[in-house]
Amino acid sequence: MSDGSASSREPTSTREAIMHATYDALHKHGYAGLSISRIAEEGDFSKSTFYHHFDDKDDILLSFADFIIVQFERGFELESTGGPVEDLYVFLNFALGTHPLAADRPDSVERMGVWIELRSQSIHDPAFAEKFTETADKYIDHLTGILAEGIEQGVFNDVDARKMATFLLTIVDGAILEVTTRTDDLRPLVWEKMDEYIRDNLIRGDVDIDESVLTDDFELADDAE
Amino acid sequence: MSDGSASSREPTSTREAIMHATYDALHKHGYAGLSISRIAEEGDFSKSTFYHHFDDKDDILLSFADFIIVQFERGFELESTGGPVEDLYVFLNFALGTHPLAADRPDSVERMGVWIELRSQSIHDPAFAEKFTETADKYIDHLTGILAEGIEQGVFNDVDARKMATFLLTIVDGAILEVTTRTDDLRPLVWEKMDEYIRDNLIRGDVDIDESVLTDDFELADDAE
Repeated sequence: MSDGSASSREPTSTREAIMHATYDALHKHGYAGLSISRIAEEGDFSKSTFYHHFDDKDDILLSFADFIIVQFERGFELESTGGPVEDLYVFLNFALGTHPLAADRPDSVERMGVWIELRSQSIHDPAFAEKFTETADKYIDHLTGILAEGIEQGVFNDVDARKMATFLLTIVDGAILEVTTRTDDLRPLVWEKMDEYIRDNLIRGDVDIDESVLTDDFELADDAE
Repeated sequence: MSDGSASSREPTSTREAIMHATYDALHKHGYAGLSISRIAEEGDFSKSTFYHHFDDKDDILLSFADFIIVQFERGFELESTGGPVEDLYVFLNFALGTHPLAADRPDSVERMGVWIELRSQSIHDPAFAEKFTETADKYIDHLTGILAEGIEQGVFNDVDARKMATFLLTIVDGAILEVTTRTDDLRPLVWEKMDEYIRDNLIRGDVDIDESVLTDDFELADDAE
């Protein structure tokens, strides 16, 4: 299993090497400045190698979106802590890039920037919009599952789990847009307010929260889907 | 005073005509596909006319960001309804593009798409990041003022007005990112949850809300800053 980075792994195939080079070129030049020459330059391979695997820039970028989406879906592989409240906090931290596994990486915000850059192609390209809607819905499904489990166990109030999951992930989307496009990082403040919201509106008053899960080392489940 | 559209007004100068052509070209081709030829084509003027006013693509786009930001700052010009609760709802509706003044416009989401497209240039360009942080902070300041007034009048709970304003605008940012990059519109759901949050956590229990302000026709103040 990979360590979740788009660019630090040893590429195992030319196709994967092209993906890593695309990541580096996109990070360095942005979407508007991306070209096949620059991807080839980053990966130190020829343009003909590139064209052996991909038709054109549109072709590589849709495949690259799939590649990046897989990285961002690794939050679904987090081992359950055993408690829905703790699972909720771990998952939100993972999504926000404030999870210890992500936050310790110097390129955590950089990777979210590449994500936003690709996602914003959806504005003009329905193929991107479909892909990013699909992956966002997987986030909503996953969080809905955690909330439904907590409602079932009686640790969360009896809210509409899907609406609550969608709302929490809208907050996460806003914080990601902000951290990648502002000159400062509002996530600590957003976390403070979101935490207050969760405690006041979602978690039942008599439930203790095991705060240690938020600072413990996390492990990824081996038997992840 | 303009009607708030970036593209429907009669241009009053060549410079403004270039801005409108840039809007149309950006909407049609996206940031990555934008070129001076395409801007000139949209505006039906020559490239030399363009170069008489702007140095290059970077130059026009920074000026265009200012132009678009002015459009988005028109929410500050909304006449106060007289009540902080109602002002809060009007402002949030304006920011989300669900305000009657904005929502009735067929290009409301289109204009938010152009906004996100420009804003995402901040990922690679510090000049954009500074501009968009500055305008986002003006939104925070404006909303903080509405909240502080409501706390002063005793209609809102005694919360930290700036933190609350920042959090509410993070939700708005998330909803804007989503509506411009998803294949569906989550804003009605986000509004439902945000409204619930505001009523349960911000508005004092004994305060009546004049719901009519949310459906009334809105007017822009003439003496706006």
